[in-house]
Amino acid sequence: MSPGVINYALPQMSRWKPDAAGRLVKAAITLFAERGYETTTVAEIAERAGLTKRTFFRYFSDKREVLFAGSGELEEVWLEAVAAAPPEAGPLTVAAAGLPPVAEIFVERHGFAGIRAGIIAANPELRERELIKLQNLAASIAAGLVDRGFSANVAILAAQAAVTVFHVAFAAWVEQDDPSAFRRLMDESLEELRSVTAG
Amino acid sequence: MSPGVINYALPQMSRWKPDAAGRLVKAAITLFAERGYETTTVAEIAERAGLTKRTFFRYFSDKREVLFAGSGELEEVWLEAVAAAPPEAGPLTVAAAGLPPVAEIFVERHGFAGIRAGIIAANPELRERELIKLQNLAASIAAGLVDRGFSANVAILAAQAAVTVFHVAFAAWVEQDDPSAFRRLMDESLEELRSVTAG
Repeated sequence: MSPGVINYALPQMSRWKPDAAGRLVKAAITLFAERGYETTTVAEIAERAGLTKRTFFRYFSDKREVLFAGSGELEEVWLEAVAAAPPEAGPLTVAAAGLPPVAEIFVERHGFAGIRAGIIAANPELRERELIKLQNLAASIAAGLVDRGFSANVAILAAQAAVTVFHVAFAAWVEQDDPSAFRRLMDESLEELRSVTAG
Repeated sequence: MSPGVINYALPQMSRWKPDAAGRLVKAAITLFAERGYETTTVAEIAERAGLTKRTFFRYFSDKREVLFAGSGELEEVWLEAVAAAPPEAGPLTVAAAGLPPVAEIFVERHGFAGIRAGIIAANPELRERELIKLQNLAASIAAGLVDRGFSANVAILAAQAAVTVFHVAFAAWVEQDDPSAFRRLMDESLEELRSVTAG
């Protein structure tokens, strides 16, 4: 089980450490909320999860990585949707095909996402890392569009637009109370993009 | 004179070091092309420019900064154009208003830009720094749009789209021989964006 494919809803089972990575993420985010990100140590995270530091480092290279544990799954789900989009779909429709399944996996992570967003906003190095992850996601989606026969330019323009739609909707979603609003916020943001570029 | 406002066309004059920053940039890029970026030292750059290491560090915090010396001017020129766009212009038109003046200042830097692009493509850390600079540029343009009365969401979507148009056109421009083609490549990329989001 890699850190990228944590499933918060259905903990994976192993003989000795059921969902160790998920427990570590949960313990970390709880401690970050209680004591602040900067002052929380890996030893404290492991202890809170009832695990050892050694186990922590089996899943994450450092404390920071815990905050980005979901990005592998996000990308995987998004790329599957890109590959599965109807053959006749236009480039933005294909690039944005990842939004609905991504909204679905995020619904149950609303509390986590809000705490995480606050930590990242307060830390320039984490903000940079977040931007790079989003740019890498855009590059992967663009590669998926090129695989479907779109030109590199069209693929980059469409993928970047779709990731910006995601980013704008995400920022609005963590700020409000209804976890299920993510899908609607994405639809609104996509509609806004279309009117921005048409106007 | 800050590193951000180097003017390659009209060197600024000071009593002792006429255009020291410009000379350092030119020396650095020549050495990077001759010997490679990794092996070139600050001492060699200063020597080639006929200046001291002390002078180098008055303008740049390290060797890497030389490659990003133009980003302050790029942002300044772009933001001026955003502020000067016609009052009735739509969000993408305002966000993209920086493209023509930016193309103009880049024309005479085609050789520099090509060498620089090769160095950045080969170095993951520099690629990340380039992405962050572009994201900061997009955030500044978005702030300029908010100042003009657009909503934050519309501003971010339009600014990000305009920066992606710039990025795509830039990548095409450094790959080909005609320095004056940048403006045309930008227009084509903007047109592609409009058809991507309309489709």
